Amino acid sequence: MIEKLVKEEIKRVPPYIPGKSIDEIAKAYSLPEEKIIKLASNENPLGASPKAIEAIRTHAAKVNIYPDALAGELRDALSRYVGLPSENILVGNGSDDVMEQCAKVFLSRGDSAIITPPTFSYYKILITMYGSQCIEVPLIEGDAEYAFDAEALLSAATRAKLLFLCSPNNPTGNLIPEALLREILEKEAIVILDEAYAEFAGTSFAHLVKHHENLIVLRTFSKAFGLAGLRVGYCLASEKVIDYLARVRQPFSVNLLAQVAAMAALEDREFLKQSVEIVREGRKYLVEELRKIPGVKAFTSQANFVLFRVEKPGLAEELLKRGIITRGCESFPGLDTRYIRVSVGKPEENRRFIAALREVL
Amino acid sequence: MIEKLVKEEIKRVPPYIPGKSIDEIAKAYSLPEEKIIKLASNENPLGASPKAIEAIRTHAAKVNIYPDALAGELRDALSRYVGLPSENILVGNGSDDVMEQCAKVFLSRGDSAIITPPTFSYYKILITMYGSQCIEVPLIEGDAEYAFDAEALLSAATRAKLLFLCSPNNPTGNLIPEALLREILEKEAIVILDEAYAEFAGTSFAHLVKHHENLIVLRTFSKAFGLAGLRVGYCLASEKVIDYLARVRQPFSVNLLAQVAAMAALEDREFLKQSVEIVREGRKYLVEELRKIPGVKAFTSQANFVLFRVEKPGLAEELLKRGIITRGCESFPGLDTRYIRVSVGKPEENRRFIAALREVL
Repeated sequence: MIEKLVKEEIKRVPPYIPGKSIDEIAKAYSLPEEKIIKLASNENPLGASPKAIEAIRTHAAKVNIYPDALAGELRDALSRYVGLPSENILVGNGSDDVMEQCAKVFLSRGDSAIITPPTFSYYKILITMYGSQCIEVPLIEGDAEYAFDAEALLSAATRAKLLFLCSPNNPTGNLIPEALLREILEKEAIVILDEAYAEFAGTSFAHLVKHHENLIVLRTFSKAFGLAGLRVGYCLASEKVIDYLARVRQPFSVNLLAQVAAMAALEDREFLKQSVEIVREGRKYLVEELRKIPGVKAFTSQANFVLFRVEKPGLAEELLKRGIITRGCESFPGLDTRYIRVSVGKPEENRRFIAALREVL
Repeated sequence: MIEKLVKEEIKRVPPYIPGKSIDEIAKAYSLPEEKIIKLASNENPLGASPKAIEAIRTHAAKVNIYPDALAGELRDALSRYVGLPSENILVGNGSDDVMEQCAKVFLSRGDSAIITPPTFSYYKILITMYGSQCIEVPLIEGDAEYAFDAEALLSAATRAKLLFLCSPNNPTGNLIPEALLREILEKEAIVILDEAYAEFAGTSFAHLVKHHENLIVLRTFSKAFGLAGLRVGYCLASEKVIDYLARVRQPFSVNLLAQVAAMAALEDREFLKQSVEIVREGRKYLVEELRKIPGVKAFTSQANFVLFRVEKPGLAEELLKRGIITRGCESFPGLDTRYIRVSVGKPEENRRFIAALREVL
């Protein structure tokens, strides 16, 4: 009876397969937990801002009260951070949640939406879940970095209702050129620009929402702000779009501790600066060291991770045996087990990773 | 251009209007914040379990790490609490989130779903949002309590794909009779039984999921466990249904602090017992006192709130001026400004509420 009642598009959504946790790896490879380093989820190697942690502890006893549905204070603080009015800001339970609200407002059966593989896997899942067709416009693998296929994108954009663009793109690390983005924005389609890693690039196209009512810029507290565990994301868009997104989001989607921690994190610019610096230095180190190793191709990245390719397949598994969790990229369409994404860690973690890789190769 | 791209069903979703917060009321009526009591959102008057608060503080520094996507430990703890295998349990960002996953899996354009007004407003919003028709089967207002309209429900159930039933029902406080529920479960429709307030009733139909693969029982940590601010809800259903819900939920929907706090709260049975007791005593007091006041009709409740009717409309506003926030029920279809829902508070809050009400009348 259940199968008969489930929507057809839901049956096409693949079951979720979670990544392995540190304690699962510890058990599987008989390693002590403290010897394992996780460079797989692009988390902040410095932790979270001490001010955010303090705010959590201060408000811990208030969790019997519902959070502010509109997250008014947080949106005001974000308004100062991004330089746009709070009417142009919507918050959610991580940016996954905000991007789902976008899919929900615009996508239904018979619609088409564009992704640029290899890219963040959740876009395609959402497109499928809301019954739409996924148009894939692959990135072009260059000698030193990936690039968007401008011609193919502009052509496909005329046939789609919505585009998911990620800049810097996960897992390749490249930015979208401003001229291309502006050309795409002239099309009659919603452009979701996922800037989860923008702080590490030092480049954002958030200001373009002032002039393009079809642009939605996604941002997050999970990366540079180190609050992945608390789930706070937001988007910047025209008031018209924000109004529709606000109707379909769950009113209490951003929990109370997430709201106070995010506000404290926005105040702690010193922590943000340190987080960005440690990533930029570590990224430079990783790319340089990877490029010294014969048979390794490392791609230039503007994010807090580096994608590289080795000739030997299944290397991520070999690194696991040495207690280093990276992200094997076989689940990204267009990539295979030769491609690995490594998050930038603390300097000693980066060194341990390079040493282990040299050992394995 | 935006209007052209937005789905028609989304345009039919009403804009969200949030309740007033304590500081807004303080400003509007020139009252000191500490003199205001909020009996409007059915929150726990005892706060949260000290063990849950301790768990939050202990884990505050780990929020840079993503939460466990499957919430494995929390689901194991829930399994022991509800007496069902963890394969029958799905968690979400509050039960609002879990009920949205149910709507998403089963409801689309052309489908019909049943609600029993007056009831929790979010059901109708979800039905609208997913493009379905809402069939309303009103409850029957009795002399002392509300009742489900068994005949009308059974007849409508043959025409619907899904039913939202709330037991104890919000805002009326009545339970669904087991015999009626069992009859409805024989129909070929999904039955979502929202048991957010079940702990206060001491009655749950969760065990029926073992025998009915079309039953989904919703539960929450927001009420008896006092964790509304952290957002943790869950549902109990057949493995088949859980599998589909798991495909469409956001993988990291339950934040890291919510997971540890919920586990600690489940361990603290003493706090749960106290929370239930203070509500049962306060509820008895409120109903008895309300029934002593001429012109007031109070309904028997199995939840942590009491619905009552007065002849004088606009009373909630009068109570506000005296620093008491209750829930005027004009936004519930079938009710009007004569109906007020008051959450059970601490004994002194309940007394202050009764005194203020006597004063106003």
